[in-house]
Amino acid sequence: MKKCVLVPDSFKGTISSEEVCAIMRKKLSEHYPDCEVSEIPVADGGEGTVDCFLKALGGEKVFVSVKGPFFEEMVSFYGLIEAGSSAVIEMASCAGLPLVEGRQDPLRTTSYGVGQLINDAIRRGCKRIIVGLGGSCTNDGGAGMAAALGVSFYDEAGQTFVPTGGTLGRVAHIDITNLTHKIRETEIVAMCDVDCTLCGKGGASHIFGPQKGADTQMVLFLDESLAHFEKIIFRDVGIEVGQLKGAGSAGGLGAGMVAFLGCKLQKGIDIVLDTVHFDELICGADFIFTGEGKIDHQSLRGKVIAGVAQRAKPQNVPVVAVVGDVGDGIAEIYQRGVNSILSINNLAIPFQQARLRSKADLEFTFDNLLRLIRSAESNPSRTEQ
Amino acid sequence: MKKCVLVPDSFKGTISSEEVCAIMRKKLSEHYPDCEVSEIPVADGGEGTVDCFLKALGGEKVFVSVKGPFFEEMVSFYGLIEAGSSAVIEMASCAGLPLVEGRQDPLRTTSYGVGQLINDAIRRGCKRIIVGLGGSCTNDGGAGMAAALGVSFYDEAGQTFVPTGGTLGRVAHIDITNLTHKIRETEIVAMCDVDCTLCGKGGASHIFGPQKGADTQMVLFLDESLAHFEKIIFRDVGIEVGQLKGAGSAGGLGAGMVAFLGCKLQKGIDIVLDTVHFDELICGADFIFTGEGKIDHQSLRGKVIAGVAQRAKPQNVPVVAVVGDVGDGIAEIYQRGVNSILSINNLAIPFQQARLRSKADLEFTFDNLLRLIRSAESNPSRTEQ
Repeated sequence: MKKCVLVPDSFKGTISSEEVCAIMRKKLSEHYPDCEVSEIPVADGGEGTVDCFLKALGGEKVFVSVKGPFFEEMVSFYGLIEAGSSAVIEMASCAGLPLVEGRQDPLRTTSYGVGQLINDAIRRGCKRIIVGLGGSCTNDGGAGMAAALGVSFYDEAGQTFVPTGGTLGRVAHIDITNLTHKIRETEIVAMCDVDCTLCGKGGASHIFGPQKGADTQMVLFLDESLAHFEKIIFRDVGIEVGQLKGAGSAGGLGAGMVAFLGCKLQKGIDIVLDTVHFDELICGADFIFTGEGKIDHQSLRGKVIAGVAQRAKPQNVPVVAVVGDVGDGIAEIYQRGVNSILSINNLAIPFQQARLRSKADLEFTFDNLLRLIRSAESNPSRTEQ
Repeated sequence: MKKCVLVPDSFKGTISSEEVCAIMRKKLSEHYPDCEVSEIPVADGGEGTVDCFLKALGGEKVFVSVKGPFFEEMVSFYGLIEAGSSAVIEMASCAGLPLVEGRQDPLRTTSYGVGQLINDAIRRGCKRIIVGLGGSCTNDGGAGMAAALGVSFYDEAGQTFVPTGGTLGRVAHIDITNLTHKIRETEIVAMCDVDCTLCGKGGASHIFGPQKGADTQMVLFLDESLAHFEKIIFRDVGIEVGQLKGAGSAGGLGAGMVAFLGCKLQKGIDIVLDTVHFDELICGADFIFTGEGKIDHQSLRGKVIAGVAQRAKPQNVPVVAVVGDVGDGIAEIYQRGVNSILSINNLAIPFQQARLRSKADLEFTFDNLLRLIRSAESNPSRTEQ
């Protein structure tokens, strides 16, 4: 093995994708000290997304003072990559759940800071902005974000205000005349791995409202408010987001970004692989090592392993997946371009115990996987085949 | 991969070594239809030992009428291998625990049938006899076996009798004059993987008596009887078996075979590997696949994986172990000649659940192991190394 690419997802709740990369790199340096190793810890759009991109591509972390979830001033950040021509923002950095721990309030929280970060990136000349939509504490339909970029929201009395989840229902009119015009020159993409719509039973409020602190009654109120907001958007902006899958991500920020910024919602893995120029990166590689906490039939659509395999297959680069649990019904994944799947479970013990040793288990399994590859590379039949 | 050797132990309580071989062979035929595959399901000396040898070497199963555990007539069997020049006997076939289920009685059971099987093999011209010592229901120190081969046991009154566990204490004199003289021309080896001595706290009665039906008092009586027997053997036969490790295996049959037949007690794996001419078999192989239910620091001494690795190392044939659980403290095993270890646990669930799916788990893991080898064999760097 002379060249390989590491592109793991996190093992949810046990090992971050950066940690997976570090463990794999350590073992590669032991068994293949001269191997060229590229590392792409995969981000899911939530916390850690900026660091993942910076790790994979290099770049600069920029710190900016913006408004936090309750409009308070706070220092947030984003990443500048590709010589400053692109930016990576994680919405959780200024509107994430951990920022409001113990005081969640989807009626009052705002995505305003996200708009400020976008604005800062535009001001610095970024032509492409990636926004991760995971881990939000808001339910404002992206109204705060839009307001920060110049969109005006009016109530019945003709007064402008910055709507939050609790006041979206009071939006009577939207005016995008003052939306910063540079938005049109900027490609904005959002990392979005959820399918939920803006409103309804499968919408933002019903699916994610409870974990943001909403009780049953509040969920209904938030949902009605977003439904009202959706109608006004359609009437005043001319964009229909009602049926759009992913529009409900990050408390409807997905909808706001589509409607006001012309943003594209894409699978996180596709954005990551595009951004790191994955197709070029894997050219001539002996192996791609990926992984995630569990592989199952869901892994066949859109998740990291399937996304990686889809790009590796045309180039005939073998994909090896190191995973936590192996679910049923995954035989199809071999046709999709995954060559081999190995579980890190080394003892027959329940997950509550296994999770405590998951890093050691990953290290052991990856070590033995590399040992097996070394043996196969040097076997007698090899040179004759 | 053009040539490989399968030499797995059983996964105790879940998959027999023959089943492991069958699963591995099936997957090899899918991925490497032209690969030359040798199968050696490893026997441990207990039930199934004869079948394992016949599977590995071919041969004939011979059925013979002998005395069972309670001196009743029964049909037992042994294996003829190497064109009839060698025999494989499992003592459990006529003196095993399953034969006395529900009526265990170590005071009355006999190893007489084992002597009859040995005699039959000698009569057929076998020059080498392998006896597996696992799974006995007896505690007679091999007196029954010896009696069947011509050894006379006298009581105080000068009467001959066939001693059992309960009557060994009445042996006053032993006469080996009538022991069939062909024993001296026959090489007899016993498969013995336990260290227990004939008598004492670490002896046959204390360690294995309870599972044969002995209560605390009976254990003490059985132990005293064997101690008496040991003294008489030393006085009348001149052989000292008191300190011999393994002498206590199969209710002291190990001691009797050493004292009366000049038998060698050997690790089962060594006998298997010698008998199948393992060193020649693995010559030029790309891989040896072995496995067992659990690999741990005990695996480093005498067990299947270590035994296999010891012989593979001088020939530089890679050994891959597929195992159930992976214990701690096994790093040394790589120096011993094991190249890679992979666990078949594919879910973080307790053993009670995992055992129910262990065959499917083995199949999945071995399948993916072969997929990985195939990928490694065809990678771009390969031909340049």
